[in-house]
Amino acid sequence: MRATLMYGAGDVRVEHVPDPTLREPTDALVRVLRSCICGSDLWPYRSMPTTEHGQRMGHEFLGVITELGSEVSGLRHGDMVLAPFVWADNTCDFCREGLQTSCRHGGLWGNDLDGGQGEAVRVPQAQGTLVKLPVGEDSALLPSLLTLSDVFCTGHHCAVKAGVGPRTTVTVIGDGAVGLSAVLAARRLGAQRILLMGRHTERTDLGREFGATDVIAERGEEGVTRAREMTGGDGTHTVLECVGTKSALDTAIAVARDGGVVSRVGVPQYEEGPLGFGMFMRNITITGGVAPARAYIDELMPDVLDGAIDPGRVFDRTITLDGVPDGYRAMANREALKVLIQP
Amino acid sequence: MRATLMYGAGDVRVEHVPDPTLREPTDALVRVLRSCICGSDLWPYRSMPTTEHGQRMGHEFLGVITELGSEVSGLRHGDMVLAPFVWADNTCDFCREGLQTSCRHGGLWGNDLDGGQGEAVRVPQAQGTLVKLPVGEDSALLPSLLTLSDVFCTGHHCAVKAGVGPRTTVTVIGDGAVGLSAVLAARRLGAQRILLMGRHTERTDLGREFGATDVIAERGEEGVTRAREMTGGDGTHTVLECVGTKSALDTAIAVARDGGVVSRVGVPQYEEGPLGFGMFMRNITITGGVAPARAYIDELMPDVLDGAIDPGRVFDRTITLDGVPDGYRAMANREALKVLIQP
Repeated sequence: MRATLMYGAGDVRVEHVPDPTLREPTDALVRVLRSCICGSDLWPYRSMPTTEHGQRMGHEFLGVITELGSEVSGLRHGDMVLAPFVWADNTCDFCREGLQTSCRHGGLWGNDLDGGQGEAVRVPQAQGTLVKLPVGEDSALLPSLLTLSDVFCTGHHCAVKAGVGPRTTVTVIGDGAVGLSAVLAARRLGAQRILLMGRHTERTDLGREFGATDVIAERGEEGVTRAREMTGGDGTHTVLECVGTKSALDTAIAVARDGGVVSRVGVPQYEEGPLGFGMFMRNITITGGVAPARAYIDELMPDVLDGAIDPGRVFDRTITLDGVPDGYRAMANREALKVLIQP
Repeated sequence: MRATLMYGAGDVRVEHVPDPTLREPTDALVRVLRSCICGSDLWPYRSMPTTEHGQRMGHEFLGVITELGSEVSGLRHGDMVLAPFVWADNTCDFCREGLQTSCRHGGLWGNDLDGGQGEAVRVPQAQGTLVKLPVGEDSALLPSLLTLSDVFCTGHHCAVKAGVGPRTTVTVIGDGAVGLSAVLAARRLGAQRILLMGRHTERTDLGREFGATDVIAERGEEGVTRAREMTGGDGTHTVLECVGTKSALDTAIAVARDGGVVSRVGVPQYEEGPLGFGMFMRNITITGGVAPARAYIDELMPDVLDGAIDPGRVFDRTITLDGVPDGYRAMANREALKVLIQP
């Protein structure tokens, strides 16, 4: 089959790789119908050291089950299924607590496993990992359902960990696909006031449609000043940091109201961050982390199926596998917000 | 009157200062009956640059009202009252949310105000700040009631922000008066398993009486290893960081269970702390901060009054004002756990 490999910064190739086969009785094979490129794929795309063997890419996909291990129950050949971006047994204590990202028998796609940006994937712990989709292969809902694999669940996780609700004001930092998903998630959780910090008008326009009440195009100190002006000088109860840079974190803390929460889901591109006296005296909490998408899919899918939310609008370009290298380039250059792959 | 001033590291003096007088109609004057030295007083005691005029010290006290401004209601001359370590109007939006430390009309003792380590204090925003004590001047409960001014409320805040409850395992880092208070608070909130990290046996012995189920004398990596061994390799759901050093914070994060919370109430002696990829992938939350003691006094006082808890046991030495310089020395040298002052 064909799949995507990254060989170093800027070097993405689609190549022939061995077809996946069942290895464990808990495995399933899935033919990929939709996949996509993640903002987090852009970090290695910008900085990965050159490797000889390449790294399999992609951690968001949905597709059709083509083969099942003997110990997988509840799933059948031909089922439409969605995979969260971390696989998990969904039965261990961490999974039962809704932290499938720390599953005792789970892990990340890629490395020695297939990635989602290919024609097929061997899915470990298939019974725990995969979620059945009650739609057909030609459903118009596939893009929105695919966002439950990662990006929308990540925005939702950010909002949930922040404690967003009807009485919390919200700032979302970042107008990428995760930031816009966080806006939509915050709105869905009842937030009435959502400030979106981002400077790409076509993106913040979608952010407004998703529920942002105010847009702040300024960055850094100017952005902080604007956000504080808009909130009577106080900042917002919750701040959803959806970028991952140190400067975004600094901004997040600066626009948080005393006693507030900074929730971050952008993969941190820093080792240390501000935790000093000022934050301490203001009782600011820093939370968030990698999103256990599996924990949220059952709750969020009905809203996608009945059209209450349409998180798939973050996809603004659709490509085939051949177009993947160009898709990376387009996302890295901010020509595309998020790229959908139909292998 | 006489009061305590700090002129620099290691230089604490008890001197004659002007008697306090009412300045605002919202003020009250309080004759101090009990005060104490705080672990946080030891930071300047170790590092404060020499000053010409000295810094008034003390932020924990209880006493008797001797004079009231015209706008103070609900309090009377002769009332026994307790002051939290931050004064506040107790009516602004932050106060109503239980964050009196961010009161719009509040502040810290000392600086241009009196400190608690003296004979009397002018209390700003007296109606909001002071809490009536239903005991007499000779009550045996005064030491425990005094802990509601800061140290026990600080331990309680740490546990509350961490989300301690019957189903959460707890590690407390630090066997100072705040750490021991955090143990007692965690036990009071229902925690069944409390690991106390501290190496002073006479202190950890009191910690066991307060509710610690296990004591870890090792520090740093050895301490982390022990804590993980005791918890099946996982660490605890909550970690109460009651020291304030960077190494204590590092330890706290290392012994937190994935998805867990590090709550810190030790005044941070660092500007930056670990917030990188590892913590992110483990979904660790960092919370805590300066404790809004005023928010907790009403809830905690009944337990002190009926003897359910006895947080005043952290006081292991009682002195008069003359003994204050030696009290600082004793606490700094760890000869005394916490020093009670009877002016």
